[in-house]
Amino acid sequence: MSETFPFTAVIGQESFKRALLLNTIDPGIGGVLAMGDRGTAKSTLVRSLADLIAGSGSHSPVVDLPLGATEDRVVGSLDVDAALARGEFRFRPGLLADAHEGFLYIDEVNLLDDHLVDLLLDVAAGGVNRVEREGVSHSHPARFVLVGSGNPEEGELRPQLEDRFGLSTFVSTLRDVATRTAIVRARLAFDADPVAFRSRYAARQSELGGLVAAARSALPDVRVPDRIVEKAVEFCVAAEAVGHRAEIVLVRAARASAALHGRTEVLHTDLAEVMLPALRHRIPRDPFEPAARVNARLTNTIRAVTGGPVAA
Amino acid sequence: MSETFPFTAVIGQESFKRALLLNTIDPGIGGVLAMGDRGTAKSTLVRSLADLIAGSGSHSPVVDLPLGATEDRVVGSLDVDAALARGEFRFRPGLLADAHEGFLYIDEVNLLDDHLVDLLLDVAAGGVNRVEREGVSHSHPARFVLVGSGNPEEGELRPQLEDRFGLSTFVSTLRDVATRTAIVRARLAFDADPVAFRSRYAARQSELGGLVAAARSALPDVRVPDRIVEKAVEFCVAAEAVGHRAEIVLVRAARASAALHGRTEVLHTDLAEVMLPALRHRIPRDPFEPAARVNARLTNTIRAVTGGPVAA
Amino acid sequence: MSETFPFTAVIGQESFKRALLLNTIDPGIGGVLAMGDRGTAKSTLVRSLADLIAGSGSHSPVVDLPLGATEDRVVGSLDVDAALARGEFRFRPGLLADAHEGFLYIDEVNLLDDHLVDLLLDVAAGGVNRVEREGVSHSHPARFVLVGSGNPEEGELRPQLEDRFGLSTFVSTLRDVATRTAIVRARLAFDADPVAFRSRYAARQSELGGLVAAARSALPDVRVPDRIVEKAVEFCVAAEAVGHRAEIVLVRAARASAALHGRTEVLHTDLAEVMLPALRHRIPRDPFEPAARVNARLTNTIRAVTGGPVAA
Amino acid sequence: MSETFPFTAVIGQESFKRALLLNTIDPGIGGVLAMGDRGTAKSTLVRSLADLIAGSGSHSPVVDLPLGATEDRVVGSLDVDAALARGEFRFRPGLLADAHEGFLYIDEVNLLDDHLVDLLLDVAAGGVNRVEREGVSHSHPARFVLVGSGNPEEGELRPQLEDRFGLSTFVSTLRDVATRTAIVRARLAFDADPVAFRSRYAARQSELGGLVAAARSALPDVRVPDRIVEKAVEFCVAAEAVGHRAEIVLVRAARASAALHGRTEVLHTDLAEVMLPALRHRIPRDPFEPAARVNARLTNTIRAVTGGPVAA
Amino acid sequence: MSETFPFTAVIGQESFKRALLLNTIDPGIGGVLAMGDRGTAKSTLVRSLADLIAGSGSHSPVVDLPLGATEDRVVGSLDVDAALARGEFRFRPGLLADAHEGFLYIDEVNLLDDHLVDLLLDVAAGGVNRVEREGVSHSHPARFVLVGSGNPEEGELRPQLEDRFGLSTFVSTLRDVATRTAIVRARLAFDADPVAFRSRYAARQSELGGLVAAARSALPDVRVPDRIVEKAVEFCVAAEAVGHRAEIVLVRAARASAALHGRTEVLHTDLAEVMLPALRHRIPRDPFEPAARVNARLTNTIRAVTGGPVAA
Amino acid sequence: MSETFPFTAVIGQESFKRALLLNTIDPGIGGVLAMGDRGTAKSTLVRSLADLIAGSGSHSPVVDLPLGATEDRVVGSLDVDAALARGEFRFRPGLLADAHEGFLYIDEVNLLDDHLVDLLLDVAAGGVNRVEREGVSHSHPARFVLVGSGNPEEGELRPQLEDRFGLSTFVSTLRDVATRTAIVRARLAFDADPVAFRSRYAARQSELGGLVAAARSALPDVRVPDRIVEKAVEFCVAAEAVGHRAEIVLVRAARASAALHGRTEVLHTDLAEVMLPALRHRIPRDPFEPAARVNARLTNTIRAVTGGPVAA
Repeated sequence: MSETFPFTAVIGQESFKRALLLNTIDPGIGGVLAMGDRGTAKSTLVRSLADLIAGSGSHSPVVDLPLGATEDRVVGSLDVDAALARGEFRFRPGLLADAHEGFLYIDEVNLLDDHLVDLLLDVAAGGVNRVEREGVSHSHPARFVLVGSGNPEEGELRPQLEDRFGLSTFVSTLRDVATRTAIVRARLAFDADPVAFRSRYAARQSELGGLVAAARSALPDVRVPDRIVEKAVEFCVAAEAVGHRAEIVLVRAARASAALHGRTEVLHTDLAEVMLPALRHRIPRDPFEPAARVNARLTNTIRAVTGGPVAA
Repeated sequence: MSETFPFTAVIGQESFKRALLLNTIDPGIGGVLAMGDRGTAKSTLVRSLADLIAGSGSHSPVVDLPLGATEDRVVGSLDVDAALARGEFRFRPGLLADAHEGFLYIDEVNLLDDHLVDLLLDVAAGGVNRVEREGVSHSHPARFVLVGSGNPEEGELRPQLEDRFGLSTFVSTLRDVATRTAIVRARLAFDADPVAFRSRYAARQSELGGLVAAARSALPDVRVPDRIVEKAVEFCVAAEAVGHRAEIVLVRAARASAALHGRTEVLHTDLAEVMLPALRHRIPRDPFEPAARVNARLTNTIRAVTGGPVAA
Repeated sequence: MSETFPFTAVIGQESFKRALLLNTIDPGIGGVLAMGDRGTAKSTLVRSLADLIAGSGSHSPVVDLPLGATEDRVVGSLDVDAALARGEFRFRPGLLADAHEGFLYIDEVNLLDDHLVDLLLDVAAGGVNRVEREGVSHSHPARFVLVGSGNPEEGELRPQLEDRFGLSTFVSTLRDVATRTAIVRARLAFDADPVAFRSRYAARQSELGGLVAAARSALPDVRVPDRIVEKAVEFCVAAEAVGHRAEIVLVRAARASAALHGRTEVLHTDLAEVMLPALRHRIPRDPFEPAARVNARLTNTIRAVTGGPVAA
Repeated sequence: MSETFPFTAVIGQESFKRALLLNTIDPGIGGVLAMGDRGTAKSTLVRSLADLIAGSGSHSPVVDLPLGATEDRVVGSLDVDAALARGEFRFRPGLLADAHEGFLYIDEVNLLDDHLVDLLLDVAAGGVNRVEREGVSHSHPARFVLVGSGNPEEGELRPQLEDRFGLSTFVSTLRDVATRTAIVRARLAFDADPVAFRSRYAARQSELGGLVAAARSALPDVRVPDRIVEKAVEFCVAAEAVGHRAEIVLVRAARASAALHGRTEVLHTDLAEVMLPALRHRIPRDPFEPAARVNARLTNTIRAVTGGPVAA
Repeated sequence: MSETFPFTAVIGQESFKRALLLNTIDPGIGGVLAMGDRGTAKSTLVRSLADLIAGSGSHSPVVDLPLGATEDRVVGSLDVDAALARGEFRFRPGLLADAHEGFLYIDEVNLLDDHLVDLLLDVAAGGVNRVEREGVSHSHPARFVLVGSGNPEEGELRPQLEDRFGLSTFVSTLRDVATRTAIVRARLAFDADPVAFRSRYAARQSELGGLVAAARSALPDVRVPDRIVEKAVEFCVAAEAVGHRAEIVLVRAARASAALHGRTEVLHTDLAEVMLPALRHRIPRDPFEPAARVNARLTNTIRAVTGGPVAA
Repeated sequence: MSETFPFTAVIGQESFKRALLLNTIDPGIGGVLAMGDRGTAKSTLVRSLADLIAGSGSHSPVVDLPLGATEDRVVGSLDVDAALARGEFRFRPGLLADAHEGFLYIDEVNLLDDHLVDLLLDVAAGGVNRVEREGVSHSHPARFVLVGSGNPEEGELRPQLEDRFGLSTFVSTLRDVATRTAIVRARLAFDADPVAFRSRYAARQSELGGLVAAARSALPDVRVPDRIVEKAVEFCVAAEAVGHRAEIVLVRAARASAALHGRTEVLHTDLAEVMLPALRHRIPRDPFEPAARVNARLTNTIRAVTGGPVAA
């Protein structure tokens, strides 16, 4: 109904942007969790990703799951009476069907009702949404990239749900006056005349859209050398990551990063770029340990393992 | 059904009055939250705003959302059986539809049921109210200015809801005998003969109504100089505001203030006038820190940044 | 169905009786809250007020709201099916409709279900009862004097509800043997032969009923001098009353008191008579401060301001 | 269906037995509360009272209210569809209707659901049971003597409910071997041949039944001298009873006692007999104060006031 | 559907076995409560009792009440529509009807839903199950022996429910290697060939079944000498048992024991045999006092009273 | 719908794999509980077991019970209206019917709703699923091997449910870089081309499938010498296992192990292999005792009893 703020016009939040793009290239990475301060354009960014993808001609819906959604709205509804009485079958798809082969975005994901979390975990585990009401049932594939955002001060995320997200980024208020002034200016300009604003970003949008689309088709041909996998595992062991999912996500995200850079082989720098987001939510930590301290610990480990610089 | 107390006859509560008028000029400011003592005419003021706007010939409804309202009454109801059986579509609009392009007022907003808060946040975020019952759905635009009031001693506001309000004012019992005597006199006079009382305020009402209407149409042409935006950001950084919404609200409210003053360019004084209400609920504070102390801290910051006086 | 104990035969509880009469004269005072010991004839008194009013030829119902009442019984019920299917409209009035232009009495008001309290507060604020069921709605005026009683040891009253009552009295067990003996005697005599008992009080009932009816019609002509309003505000400021409702109630109750005394101008003694009941529940106090201590503090303030004696 | 153990064959529990008989003579005393140890024949006694009354030719039902009873079973049910559609009225009476002009017995009364307690208090206060379902309503008189029993260790009684009981007795395990042996013998004998057992008690049952019936009709003619009422009040003041219900119950119970003794004037000994049960639950006490200590305190007060012996 | 492990092949748990047999002989004893360690064949034993009784030609059903049972399944269900519309009466019996004149077994009885406990207590008290739905009702006799088992570490039993059980036994893991080896052997042998296993125990089953049936018919003729009743009471007083139910159960269980031994008079040894199970749950004890300590205390009392040995 | 990762390609988790195979050979062992770190392929392993069994031509379904499942989906649903009105019987089987003679897998079993746990325990105890709705009922056999997994940090398992599992294994993150690298490689290879990957494991799958099938039919002929049973009991006594289920599971698991090794007599080494998983959840332990410490204690006991090495 209304115009969307362009993805390429969003200022800052580089780590979250990159995580969204890598998941667009390889949905198998498993989604992004963006926790952090309120008012830092997290929702804007997700909405503009939908617009970017649509602009590049791909089909990859971005669907909002509102906190107050009923189960019927999420999984879809089934007209049981019609099915039993007249043999007609009437399934009305829900948000999970809408999100298939796209993104499912949950703002305030840490406040989501437990029952909906159970539902999401079941569907995300199997890739199939099965609705059953009084003995009538309907199934449809439901594979989507989960994107969640929230403010950690308002509630913790259930560990199973947190673990389900491939990457995790932490988003905080910027402290640089010039950047923040630019953000206000851009917002006022967009609000004053959205169409003119968008046309100024048209070329940048189309260029980035093209790069992502190209990386997506090149992905199967990107090689992952043995030393990269070993380095990934070595790092996960050093960081004391829980379970083996960390290294798999790490290698997949590095491969998507190489594809976005237009390369056909994963380099150490690709790995270094995604270490922090792939591990941050999978290492042992105190319930009240500040995000900054977790980052610092992890960054030390990354330096020790890679000997190189660390992406946020 | 009964006569309304005139907006211009309300004595005191200047900060809340100004916040209501600025939101009438630019609904994009995002509403007002007025916390404070019971019995300080908060509800009276909101009801008289509706009367003021109506008197100036504009359409801008002011709708009450009672605490005990059911979900159906808030979002509207859908006759599912009629829709499925006879193909007829029957949607009966709720309070959100009534409030479209106007104000939605919630007294005791800090006691509002969590489920209704979720609903409001979803609708306020997207500007669309979507009702769905057993697979039948209806959408309508629902953009409204949220006005909330409450007594902070009786319960806290959920942070996401608090952040959603553009401006925040604190309303306390006056301690000046003359002013309070005037309030009693006005009330007794109004109760004794509402029609006569209103006619005495007719000119003042029509003058203020005219100013607001003029400011509303002049708003798009009010210029915001760069130094104003920078000052706004500088102040938000100094005050350690969480997120970037603060400076955007600040600049918009200053612009509406300039329009109300009849100017075509925002001045530093416009900014200074709205700093306190735009930031009060967005700076780090202790859960039990008294409102007066938060104000004092913020006032110091305003003085340090502007070097000038501070509006309440 | 059974005979009622006469209002004028109730021994003791003068403060509660006066508060009930003042509200009968000016319903705008806003009701009475009578907290105190069990078994002190609070309910008996309210029931006999209804009888007194009826005896004087006025229409002013006194309706009981039982704790266990359903929402339908309180607000009334709507036959939705009939309304939709046959276009017939069927609203069956509830207790709120019954209480219109009369009294609504809630015994154990401090134990009332939160949902009913919300409902009552909504209706009391607007003076209108609006029932809405599945898109069908009905409104009717519902202006009533709220009378509540309860034992403070069994639960606190929600502050919003407490503030809604114009006056507040505290009722405790009498310690005087002669008075209590008289109470038992009166009760046994009434139980033995209610008709004979009532006939003995007929003259007193008709005299008091006449006084109240006269005061009711004389009320608009009772003058409130400026010095009375100032004194009222001065007292409220000295007592640190929260909000401005206290002085308005105080002045209205003093005016009703003057009318009951048959005067056409409010005197200082009228004000002094209602200071305690108008302020007792509106001054800052500890949650566990005994009623006696609150009274003592307030009585000191009254003496300091009026220099005169204090009514209970 | 099965034979009942005779009231006169119950060994011990004299205080509870007398309280039941006094309430049979004057239902206005307001019921009995019997708290104490499990397994002390409380239920047996109530059931045998029903049998005693029936045996004396009176109509005075004794109805059980089981803890798990639904609201419909207690208040009765209304066939709403029939009433609206066919104009037929169908009310099926509940336990309250069954108990009218008789006894309503609640074992484990301290565990009764809060909602049922509210219901009972409403009906007990007004003497009328009003059932309302979707706008259809039915009323019938419901005056009954409330008899409750329970084990205080398993939960406290709500104060409003406790105060509603006219008399209160405390029932504990007997420690006398001979009496307990007699109880076992009686039980075994009754179980072995109930009919023979009952016939052995037929004369005693008929004699007691006759005394009670005679006392019931003589009651209106029993005189209560002034000195008796004064003594009752004096005692209640000395015991610091809360409210004025205590002295009224005390005088009524003494009057019923006089009637049972066949006298036409109440004596001091009648008063002394019922002081403990009338006051025990109405004096200030610690939540955890043992029943024995409350009794001891009260007994001292009784001695001080009467100068005579004290009935349990 | 499948073969049952024979009662006489169960190794150990003598006290529980005897308690079950005594209740089969005299259902008036009031059931058995068997608390103790998991995995000690409690359920197996109850199921094999059913098989033993059936084998002896008696009718005495043993019905399982599963924790998750709905109220309808327990009390039975009533087709209200059919009853009202067509005058047909349709009651479908529930588990209580199935258990009539037999045993009702509840495993994990300490975890049973409070509402079901209320229901059971009501039915057990009156011996009648009354189902009432919307004014339609049905009653049937429901007298059954309650058998409960559970692990005390997982939750306490409500005192009213505990008191309802006539006897109580404590079941713990055996520590003797030979016995436990025998148990494994028996289990493996039974699992390998249930039919062959059962045939090996056929004689023992039929012998015990016959003894129980004979005791059941001889019971009314077993004499209980006065000195036995006195001894029972003396013991209950010494043990400080709460209420008088203990001595009644004690005498009845001793009488059933005499009948099982084929005697026509109760001896002291019969009494001694059932003292521990009849009293264990009726003496004052700390909430966390270990079962072993309660047993030890009680055993000392038994020795002091009987001067003889004590059965477990 | 998609290809399954081969059981024989899963690297590590030997103890869990063996427990699954032993239960496939003898379902009477009673299932497996696998608690431990997230992301350790527990679910993958269970899904690949289903595939292995299917590949060997046996019928033994592996059914998922999702946390969010409704009762109807678990136990099946009954069309009551059809049954009553038209006499037709319509039962739609649920997950329990699907799992009959196979495996029922519950991920996050420690978070399962209490009501579903009750249901499962009832069905697992009796081997029959009985569905009853408004007097209509249907039963079907439901014997299945329960497999549960979960992360102990997120919630404890109810003791009754834990005890129901025959064996228990603890699964933790591997710390060996080479193994973890192999896991990543295998995963990437499988994701890149599942069909090719599976064909590389075809021989190994068919070999293991054959061994399991052979062991299953040879099981009844495997002899359990007396000294093996005694050793098992001796060990359970030494370990202070609660109840007698431990030694029965131990002997059955050892017998299945012997069958898998192709032997016809159980050896000490078979017993030693299953001691840890059979006892770990049945010995006394602190609620917060780490799994490693429980293992260590138990391992010492095993060494003391067997004098030999200990399987994990």
